[in-house]
Amino acid sequence: MSDSLENIREFIEQYSEEDLKKAINGIPIDDLIEYWDQLASEEELRFFSLLNLDRKVDLINSLPSSSQETLVTDLSVEHKRVLLEEMEPDDLTDFMQAISPEVRDAVWKSLGDEAKQETLFLLKFDEDDAAGLMTPRYLALSSSLNVSQALGWVRKNAADVETVSYIYVVDQLKRLRGVVSLRHILTARDEDLIEDIIIKKVVTVREDTDQEAAARILETHDFVALPVVDDYNRLLGIITFDDVIDVIREEQTEDIYKMGAMGGGTERYLESSIWSLIGKRVPWLGILLVAATLTTNVLSYFESLFVAATVLTLFIPTIIGTGGNSGTQSATLIIRGLAMGELHFHDFGRVLLKEIAVAMVIGICMGALIVVRSVFLPPFIEMHEAITIGVALSFVIVFATLVGASAPLIINRMGMDPTVMAAPLMATLIDIAGLTVYFLTARLLLGLH
Amino acid sequence: MSDSLENIREFIEQYSEEDLKKAINGIPIDDLIEYWDQLASEEELRFFSLLNLDRKVDLINSLPSSSQETLVTDLSVEHKRVLLEEMEPDDLTDFMQAISPEVRDAVWKSLGDEAKQETLFLLKFDEDDAAGLMTPRYLALSSSLNVSQALGWVRKNAADVETVSYIYVVDQLKRLRGVVSLRHILTARDEDLIEDIIIKKVVTVREDTDQEAAARILETHDFVALPVVDDYNRLLGIITFDDVIDVIREEQTEDIYKMGAMGGGTERYLESSIWSLIGKRVPWLGILLVAATLTTNVLSYFESLFVAATVLTLFIPTIIGTGGNSGTQSATLIIRGLAMGELHFHDFGRVLLKEIAVAMVIGICMGALIVVRSVFLPPFIEMHEAITIGVALSFVIVFATLVGASAPLIINRMGMDPTVMAAPLMATLIDIAGLTVYFLTARLLLGLH
Repeated sequence: MSDSLENIREFIEQYSEEDLKKAINGIPIDDLIEYWDQLASEEELRFFSLLNLDRKVDLINSLPSSSQETLVTDLSVEHKRVLLEEMEPDDLTDFMQAISPEVRDAVWKSLGDEAKQETLFLLKFDEDDAAGLMTPRYLALSSSLNVSQALGWVRKNAADVETVSYIYVVDQLKRLRGVVSLRHILTARDEDLIEDIIIKKVVTVREDTDQEAAARILETHDFVALPVVDDYNRLLGIITFDDVIDVIREEQTEDIYKMGAMGGGTERYLESSIWSLIGKRVPWLGILLVAATLTTNVLSYFESLFVAATVLTLFIPTIIGTGGNSGTQSATLIIRGLAMGELHFHDFGRVLLKEIAVAMVIGICMGALIVVRSVFLPPFIEMHEAITIGVALSFVIVFATLVGASAPLIINRMGMDPTVMAAPLMATLIDIAGLTVYFLTARLLLGLH
Repeated sequence: MSDSLENIREFIEQYSEEDLKKAINGIPIDDLIEYWDQLASEEELRFFSLLNLDRKVDLINSLPSSSQETLVTDLSVEHKRVLLEEMEPDDLTDFMQAISPEVRDAVWKSLGDEAKQETLFLLKFDEDDAAGLMTPRYLALSSSLNVSQALGWVRKNAADVETVSYIYVVDQLKRLRGVVSLRHILTARDEDLIEDIIIKKVVTVREDTDQEAAARILETHDFVALPVVDDYNRLLGIITFDDVIDVIREEQTEDIYKMGAMGGGTERYLESSIWSLIGKRVPWLGILLVAATLTTNVLSYFESLFVAATVLTLFIPTIIGTGGNSGTQSATLIIRGLAMGELHFHDFGRVLLKEIAVAMVIGICMGALIVVRSVFLPPFIEMHEAITIGVALSFVIVFATLVGASAPLIINRMGMDPTVMAAPLMATLIDIAGLTVYFLTARLLLGLH
């Protein structure tokens, strides 16, 4: 694509407006996004002006917010208006929330009255709630129509809504009374009454339902859209599947960051300032550092032991590293199971039994591996020392696995998020306990004091 | 819900069929799934028979494969037939691939001819390719119709397809010539020709496109469905958004497992056998163990050093733990950026500069923290020793961060998956290098040999 970027730059100099349009509209959106920040500001504008309107909207929605901002700022008032008109109200609201106050002012001025109203309505809701995802552009009609009338009405209004897949039925107070899929309307007879074909038990979410919970409901039912209602069952808007995909992606990034011992936002790397990167990393790193220094206390308690047998020191990193890894494996499986709703606290017994069995087999394998490795490869330690270390490692693994399996279940039961306990904190806790197990076993087997 | 389970059990004994149906169909599918494996086999069948057909299909699609199997095996031939008829061909094919050969035989016999044909067709494709997600039930018509005729035709055929959102236009050889959304047809005038309103540049994926790539294309464009074509641009089927959500979830699980140092399948925890759990964990644990034992060699090289200053031993776990954590943080950010298509190899320079700046600030903070902590809290070490350890930690952090940031970019450039390099392997490599940096710094500052 670097080549095609070059090609298009040449094109721009040599070819007609028509040819350019064709070439640029033939580039996949993903490629445009990848190379967008390498374009000069005039080039960006030139490229952008050549795109078809729907591709402009796709591009603007997918660009990082800093590029969105620059681009929209540079557009002429008229271009800005046309583009913003074309954006879905929920995307527009997200965009308004992401940009800086000055640009927001300029954008606000170019909005039509309807878009202003919709944006103000959507801004009332919390970004992280179900209502933060919804669009107020849905199809709602009265239940007294028949199929033929309803279809005529849908045809008149289809252009203004985000999806035509479902048609909602509301009463005069906007309370949700039922739903019918367009497919159902299409396959019904002309004279059937909407009243008779709607589903009255509608799956809905409340405005303050957590976004991730709403995503899961849409997912379980494979719905294209999910209605959002208030306390009085009044229809506020609908969440569509594309918003749900965005929520799942963001959740994924958050979970991965937590496993990598980071908190904070999920903004793109290249857009994050150095201070925001530091802020994301320092708190957890500091907590883990202070927790880890407890190992100094454990070690200083056993100091006489490793002074008497320095071979024990040689294996400290291996022992705690392997203990940490097996605890992390176990914790990862359980945390993922909890997150996916496949595991619950009432499975505690079954999980523990399974993990004990698994840990014993793994402990024996790894114990044997380290004995063989350290006797036959440098630093070639004595067999009785190797066996001591192997046995200690087996104990550490069993212990670490049990901690790794039970901690997430207990933490989850206490209503906290077990993901933050994952890899790093777990590994640190296991380091501390693992060292204790290691030295106690060694003391016993080597007959030291 | 444990209560509502009890309630319904009481219901079953006391109330009429009609009341039971209402009660059971009022339970959200997610709750049914959670408690399903606590039901006795007769209860499962009784519950299941009371569900509405569409809820039966939702439930079967969401149950773990072992429960699917038991349930389907226990159904009467007639019930089995009705249920399987109602499943979408792509879900049915997934189901057929998940169950054991004996059950598969029984299921196969209860399929109608059309379902058999569709399943055989879908089984030809690789499960991991785009074609492995598709359904052959889409709407395709000839471009010579006008809007009114097309709409009539859609109404006749809407019941048989997975989505009515898009209508595809194919020629006699089934080659894809265009697409039009149902919404567009609805808003067009009756006499418009389909030929004139279709989009001829259709976004498609090839049958052998990777599933995750196909998911990303649907995602970028916010499409409800994406057509799959063969080498000759013949339309084979369509991928719908719900399949894409499943792919994203599975990708998420795989990535999280990799970060937790595990390979293998993504089957549910409670369904995995002990041997499959061991198989998922032992290979990586063994590799990491052997890699970690290189630390023994590093330590035995520096043995004279820590025998002379045992305080150095006390901080081994803290130093390598913190180094590992900062390397992991950096690697996690870069790997996620790569996976989301936000970072590329051509960003190497910018990433490195940013990480050097971040690492220096973090290194100084953590260095200061460990000095303060170890001088003022037990084991109360000497100031000059503390400063040595603080400086060494800063160096280790800078070094680990740079490794964490550059390794994923290089590995990705070489065409390999950087996720498997994440947390655990990175931490092990950083342990080895970190210890070396630690002891070299300490030797220099403490003037030892």
